[in-house]
Amino acid sequence: MSLHYIQHAASDYYQLDDLLTPEEKNLRHQIGEIMVEEVAPIMAEYWEKAEFPHHVIPKFGGLGFAGGPIQGYGCKTVTTTACAVAYAEIARVDPSIGSSILVHSCLATLLIAQHGSEKQKQNYIPLLARLDMISTCKGAPGLRVAKIENKVALRIVQNGDVMFDNVFVPDEDKLPSLTSFQGFVEALSFARIMVAWVSIGVAMGVYDLCNRYVTERKQFGVPLAAFQLTQAKLVRMLGNIQAMFLTGWRLCKLHESGKMTTGHASMGKAWITLRARETVALGRELLGGNGILTDFLVAKAFCDMEPIYSYEGTYEINCLITGREITGIASFKPPTLKKRSFL
Amino acid sequence: MSLHYIQHAASDYYQLDDLLTPEEKNLRHQIGEIMVEEVAPIMAEYWEKAEFPHHVIPKFGGLGFAGGPIQGYGCKTVTTTACAVAYAEIARVDPSIGSSILVHSCLATLLIAQHGSEKQKQNYIPLLARLDMISTCKGAPGLRVAKIENKVALRIVQNGDVMFDNVFVPDEDKLPSLTSFQGFVEALSFARIMVAWVSIGVAMGVYDLCNRYVTERKQFGVPLAAFQLTQAKLVRMLGNIQAMFLTGWRLCKLHESGKMTTGHASMGKAWITLRARETVALGRELLGGNGILTDFLVAKAFCDMEPIYSYEGTYEINCLITGREITGIASFKPPTLKKRSFL
Amino acid sequence: MSLHYIQHAASDYYQLDDLLTPEEKNLRHQIGEIMVEEVAPIMAEYWEKAEFPHHVIPKFGGLGFAGGPIQGYGCKTVTTTACAVAYAEIARVDPSIGSSILVHSCLATLLIAQHGSEKQKQNYIPLLARLDMISTCKGAPGLRVAKIENKVALRIVQNGDVMFDNVFVPDEDKLPSLTSFQGFVEALSFARIMVAWVSIGVAMGVYDLCNRYVTERKQFGVPLAAFQLTQAKLVRMLGNIQAMFLTGWRLCKLHESGKMTTGHASMGKAWITLRARETVALGRELLGGNGILTDFLVAKAFCDMEPIYSYEGTYEINCLITGREITGIASFKPPTLKKRSFL
Amino acid sequence: MSLHYIQHAASDYYQLDDLLTPEEKNLRHQIGEIMVEEVAPIMAEYWEKAEFPHHVIPKFGGLGFAGGPIQGYGCKTVTTTACAVAYAEIARVDPSIGSSILVHSCLATLLIAQHGSEKQKQNYIPLLARLDMISTCKGAPGLRVAKIENKVALRIVQNGDVMFDNVFVPDEDKLPSLTSFQGFVEALSFARIMVAWVSIGVAMGVYDLCNRYVTERKQFGVPLAAFQLTQAKLVRMLGNIQAMFLTGWRLCKLHESGKMTTGHASMGKAWITLRARETVALGRELLGGNGILTDFLVAKAFCDMEPIYSYEGTYEINCLITGREITGIASFKPPTLKKRSFL
Repeated sequence: MSLHYIQHAASDYYQLDDLLTPEEKNLRHQIGEIMVEEVAPIMAEYWEKAEFPHHVIPKFGGLGFAGGPIQGYGCKTVTTTACAVAYAEIARVDPSIGSSILVHSCLATLLIAQHGSEKQKQNYIPLLARLDMISTCKGAPGLRVAKIENKVALRIVQNGDVMFDNVFVPDEDKLPSLTSFQGFVEALSFARIMVAWVSIGVAMGVYDLCNRYVTERKQFGVPLAAFQLTQAKLVRMLGNIQAMFLTGWRLCKLHESGKMTTGHASMGKAWITLRARETVALGRELLGGNGILTDFLVAKAFCDMEPIYSYEGTYEINCLITGREITGIASFKPPTLKKRSFL
Repeated sequence: MSLHYIQHAASDYYQLDDLLTPEEKNLRHQIGEIMVEEVAPIMAEYWEKAEFPHHVIPKFGGLGFAGGPIQGYGCKTVTTTACAVAYAEIARVDPSIGSSILVHSCLATLLIAQHGSEKQKQNYIPLLARLDMISTCKGAPGLRVAKIENKVALRIVQNGDVMFDNVFVPDEDKLPSLTSFQGFVEALSFARIMVAWVSIGVAMGVYDLCNRYVTERKQFGVPLAAFQLTQAKLVRMLGNIQAMFLTGWRLCKLHESGKMTTGHASMGKAWITLRARETVALGRELLGGNGILTDFLVAKAFCDMEPIYSYEGTYEINCLITGREITGIASFKPPTLKKRSFL
Repeated sequence: MSLHYIQHAASDYYQLDDLLTPEEKNLRHQIGEIMVEEVAPIMAEYWEKAEFPHHVIPKFGGLGFAGGPIQGYGCKTVTTTACAVAYAEIARVDPSIGSSILVHSCLATLLIAQHGSEKQKQNYIPLLARLDMISTCKGAPGLRVAKIENKVALRIVQNGDVMFDNVFVPDEDKLPSLTSFQGFVEALSFARIMVAWVSIGVAMGVYDLCNRYVTERKQFGVPLAAFQLTQAKLVRMLGNIQAMFLTGWRLCKLHESGKMTTGHASMGKAWITLRARETVALGRELLGGNGILTDFLVAKAFCDMEPIYSYEGTYEINCLITGREITGIASFKPPTLKKRSFL
Repeated sequence: MSLHYIQHAASDYYQLDDLLTPEEKNLRHQIGEIMVEEVAPIMAEYWEKAEFPHHVIPKFGGLGFAGGPIQGYGCKTVTTTACAVAYAEIARVDPSIGSSILVHSCLATLLIAQHGSEKQKQNYIPLLARLDMISTCKGAPGLRVAKIENKVALRIVQNGDVMFDNVFVPDEDKLPSLTSFQGFVEALSFARIMVAWVSIGVAMGVYDLCNRYVTERKQFGVPLAAFQLTQAKLVRMLGNIQAMFLTGWRLCKLHESGKMTTGHASMGKAWITLRARETVALGRELLGGNGILTDFLVAKAFCDMEPIYSYEGTYEINCLITGREITGIASFKPPTLKKRSFL
């Protein structure tokens, strides 16, 4: 299984790897090795237990992609593209790990669990604080975190309902760069690119497994791959993946050159996760009965894809954000925020 | 929540209840009460633990629908339609319970887990035996059952890989009516109608919950139901459900009048589960973040729908069975069985 | 070709004909004969010329279905179901003829061409007049009709932009039953059932032709029907058609018993035409290059399906009308009308 | 309307123009000007008449893209990408013109009209001859061309059934580069890239028109663009287009670097035209009643998209060609050809 993830992945049909720099390829390779060696063997177990394998995180420590293109804070600066392919490579094996590292995304998830896309004023306070503050402040008066149980997806991620009751956030815990709503929107847009790439990785992982599965498993005396209906599904999946990768790659380039708008990111997230969802559903069909067992990776991917499709803004919200930008007309009432909440 | 399931379900928009006899309506009502009172409150817990609530089964004991239209064996004979609405009513709350009662279905699941739609000769032996034999024979030489773990769907159902190595089945354990492959095919076709109805029930349960959810939950100061994109989803779901119910109802009538062919049943199962799958996916979207928590029923339904879509023949296999009937041309090699395996 | 349309249509897979009364079956049969003998041979020619074969209409004269369940006005009263299957039977060969007979529909089309679903006050005047008034009044001061050219669909229907400038409508030209907006809404709802049935007929005609085409035409030495991808399409189409027929049939029964609401009709029209559109698109694919030639019926059906999908309210408008009924919340501003416009 | 096509097209949301060289941009611009000035105003008329505007072709004479990357034959050599964007730019206004110029494609269309994807031995003779031979040889013994009438799509293209009965092709009319079946396959693959780009252009033209239409046209007192359902469609279309362009662009790069396989081209053609078809259908919905009038460009694009989806290999055939390449297993019997047919 190991080599499968690293070398000549079947899902890279259009040699998209050529669009990456040597550094980006190298980062991807290093992450792939960790995921295959350390994470792949234990994923089914942790998903079943709904626990997080904390011991895995330090292994990514030296790679320096977690901060993305953020400068300062002790972050090693990498390109948007490097960051994107890193998250995708993690998600090929398991999207929960990536989602947990993806701090912006993580936080947004917490909020969405409580208020969906309606982010009320009071909630922005923690957004402007350092994200690790939430655990730091666990003893702080007024902050309460209730673990969310009974999940059918991303069970490895430890989501919690976070309740704030007059929590005091000291100045040194605020993120200096996030001093305005615009800064927050930009952080969200960056997170949307990354979530899109998480779904690209999920789809690639599913395809690579399916491609092998259908050539190995036999029905009626021939490999599944000999049936037209199987081939048509495989090709649909593969076509989706090439297009998702290229769309995600273009989004990174727009971001790197400073040209990316909020609408660009929202449409990219919406469109890419839509196709990812279709792709993993096709993959699940291909595995038949084995498509509901986490041992085969595809079942887990199928479930995990659902919150990815919905967080950082549901498909609909992201469409409407883009729709407002391209038509100049709002079709829903966006949240209003008072300036002082960012002071 | 309780009344919600029994009275004036929102999902019965076209007053389809009128197509049922008083006996069928009554059976539906009785089952609905049990499900709401006894099963609904414990489902999330059992799904999480992947255990079966054995204490629930006896409550259905007196209703007599489990045998369907089979005569003899101590079965109370009910119409195909009665049996169908019974399974649907169970599945509105939880499809695992129904699937476990649906013995034919259950057995087929076991086989599919091992061989997909390719049912080899040796395996037919138990099909011709009484189904409870599998537990009865647990000590029998040559029979081994390994529990299937790590499921993301129908976690309540206790699936097992059943291995047979020269198992001896005494004459008294054989099902007398199943003395031929034709008898087996007919049993499968009946099971396909019931599985189709399980998915109708799942879709109805999801719709009923969503309909209430979107009118109660507010975003941006208005109920979710005030958004066009929400209404369009609701109506798509509701339209699907009316059509699924009517198609399933027609299938029952064809079966009751002895006119139903194998192709009729296969197409019905394929088409109805296709639309059910679309319907629960739309429902999951409507619930956003809450759509991945089993507390809300929809998340569980979304996952459980997957094996329902695949068992008793995947969508594709059922299409090709019907395709062969309507065109007179086989597009895949069906399994061949020697006559003597039914002796 | 002739017998093909009348006897044992392949599209009636679930023996849905059994749901009809002898009178309804007889009407269907008579119409089928006219369509096959008189209309089928000339349709391609009239579509190409964008002309209407006026000589065909009198042949339907004695059948008495045009007025539907309307009483009086010299109309022979038939059931809603009879009327529905009549329109479907016409549409199996050509939907333009049926659309032209369907007077309510026809009128609505005129309005939609001008204002879409936004029907302004002034326009209701002619709705309350007898529909043949439009031609009657051709010389009336203020009324101008401009033929709509360059259509890609329903080219046989003679649409016109109708402009009213202070047109005087004498009392005797008003439809007595339409004295209120409610009456108008009910007429629209009835028209929506009929349009739904037009699309059912179109889909059946397409399926019947495709079913024969794929068994007769060979590729790579075998009939097209031998390919899995072909069979899967056929079965998808056939499943859709059974469900569309049953949904349309239920709608007729609700209408006949006086229980049908506006929302019922709108959802039925939206859902049925959605599936019809999918069905004819699949049929067009099956015919490959021949799928763009009107000689094969499918090409024309594919094009004609588009306005059918959009008139009597687009898919979206009908969803939102139903959405308002089932949630109690309006998601768009419906037209407001002053009472006196109906005096 | 004119500027609309040339400057800052709304469909280029991700600034994809930046991926082109100055020469490619310039070619695109020149073609755009011709199409808007000369072709756009007359298209509806020629489509209605089903005639070809021969006087338009010479205007493209000096641009030198028709031969694509073919060297010799008096062709100006341009990059694959240049050729691709040229065809797309033509197709934004009208795909018939481009299809007629695209000689390879044109020929394949002729064959498909006769044999679909089954290209028999005898038919390859003309493929190895110069394509203009067909008109040149009109008087040749044994060659007969019958115009195909009654089309609902690409009506401007003059298709013909070409019948060969012992036609003698002199050596000087053979295409020297096509001396093998492999050469023929490569020519087909190149044509598939171009057809994919024709569909990209069609989709862009439709989007650009729709984007403007929904902001200008009012319903219920507001622009159509103010409705969520409208915005969701626009964004779906726009997302498709960015992904189609990027996928088509990558295909060009693979071709230019000599790395493109037959499977790459087939999947690209299949996937891109699938999304194009979805995009134009959404656009047609947005135009409501105006979506069936060629005056609005979208109606024509909707119809024309169908043969584009089916020629150069239907969606299915292209999937299976790719499927064979990625799985190593053939799921249908490809045509066999004797070597000597290429002598």
